Amino acid sequence: MKDQTSTLRQTDDDALELARKLQHTSPYAALAVIDPQTQFPFASRILLCTDMDGCPAVLVSALATHTAALREDGRASLLVGEPGKGDPLAYARMTIQCRAKAVDRDGIDHKRLRKRFLARHPKAALYIDFTDFCFFRLMPEWASLNGGFGRAYRIEGRDLLIHSPANALIADHADEIERYVYEKFPHIFDNIAAASGVSRKTANSAWRVAGVDCEGLDIAEGELFIRYNWEALVTSLDATYSNIAKIASVTTKT
Amino acid sequence: MKDQTSTLRQTDDDALELARKLQHTSPYAALAVIDPQTQFPFASRILLCTDMDGCPAVLVSALATHTAALREDGRASLLVGEPGKGDPLAYARMTIQCRAKAVDRDGIDHKRLRKRFLARHPKAALYIDFTDFCFFRLMPEWASLNGGFGRAYRIEGRDLLIHSPANALIADHADEIERYVYEKFPHIFDNIAAASGVSRKTANSAWRVAGVDCEGLDIAEGELFIRYNWEALVTSLDATYSNIAKIASVTTKT
Repeated sequence: MKDQTSTLRQTDDDALELARKLQHTSPYAALAVIDPQTQFPFASRILLCTDMDGCPAVLVSALATHTAALREDGRASLLVGEPGKGDPLAYARMTIQCRAKAVDRDGIDHKRLRKRFLARHPKAALYIDFTDFCFFRLMPEWASLNGGFGRAYRIEGRDLLIHSPANALIADHADEIERYVYEKFPHIFDNIAAASGVSRKTANSAWRVAGVDCEGLDIAEGELFIRYNWEALVTSLDATYSNIAKIASVTTKT
Repeated sequence: MKDQTSTLRQTDDDALELARKLQHTSPYAALAVIDPQTQFPFASRILLCTDMDGCPAVLVSALATHTAALREDGRASLLVGEPGKGDPLAYARMTIQCRAKAVDRDGIDHKRLRKRFLARHPKAALYIDFTDFCFFRLMPEWASLNGGFGRAYRIEGRDLLIHSPANALIADHADEIERYVYEKFPHIFDNIAAASGVSRKTANSAWRVAGVDCEGLDIAEGELFIRYNWEALVTSLDATYSNIAKIASVTTKT
């Protein structure tokens, strides 16, 4: 039998960028866990967000099979990246092998994830505070990226995370950063959309900030979600503000 | 902690119909297996077809992680049913817990599945005969159907299978049945599309038979796939022909 690694390509910057994009922008995923009653794998659909350090997080109900499974055995797998029209196997997807850890409902991690999750999935406001709902962080150990036929790569977990000393600082100031964006640079959304090659222009009022972290800014409007990456990793609050001012100044608006 | 079964609804005919439809018509799925090297669950995307008895089947490469896993441990889980626009959790999906069994490449099962898979996924002709590709049948043990918020059902594996003494007979005569459809009733495709509420009319020549079994007929045109169920389970070749003639006669065409 051939060695499986022989089919892997050398992981380059393009592969890493695609991997991070799939992890960060996928609104939902298939989550595979080990069913504690049968030891079978069990696949289900969950909504995703990412935490400040890039770690994927899921909001789950205690009534669901996957939640009981994750409490028993943290080994989990996420399949992100959905196909469009045509051959499903021609579309990029990634299997992320993770260790799940429950998030204490009374702690600061829950509060931060609650905000980030709602920014990503506003409709979850209907149930996010139900007592049987909780978050798990799914820490990536490694991932198998498939960019389409014959384009397979192995990605290390550390390359899917955001390693900045300012992660906690930016999280603490997220509300303030958002207000800054809305008040000072309401046209930033159109600039980011244009920079991302999204032609649709939307009334500024419909756009929202869907998250900020040390690698970039997420904006959303309805189903549309755009990740804008800073030119370099941010390690201070000032650098975050100056990155925002920079993209806001790209196009002059009146 | 609440008993999980307390959240399940009583499985009725509508739930069974939805479950069978998801299993039979999903072109692809997330497949979860146990990675033999790490004992982690591992989720990946695969193309699906169903066999004559309704059993899901996958075509996989020996170079892929899921294939090595299935050879080692047949416990598998399929997530079928893809979301559209809007809230992904509002769309029906089903987790099918299965036992995987490799299909001998030299046997009659392989030949039958090869035909059915190609009818479903014509582009797979590019690689289906590569020596490292093989089929696994994924026999359903039970399934968890989620029809949207608060609509969870347990489905038994036997209810996802086609129990007819004529399964093998219809498989043996599949080519002949197809020729009968194309030669005698070229307008049957439009009739089935209309009966299924599909308004698009396509030149007859673009439609194809995508499968025939004891519960119904599948037709396809490009990405469009329609399952037409016979009024009752078929247990003979004659009954198959008369069912075809019946739907062909619904609308008079000139």
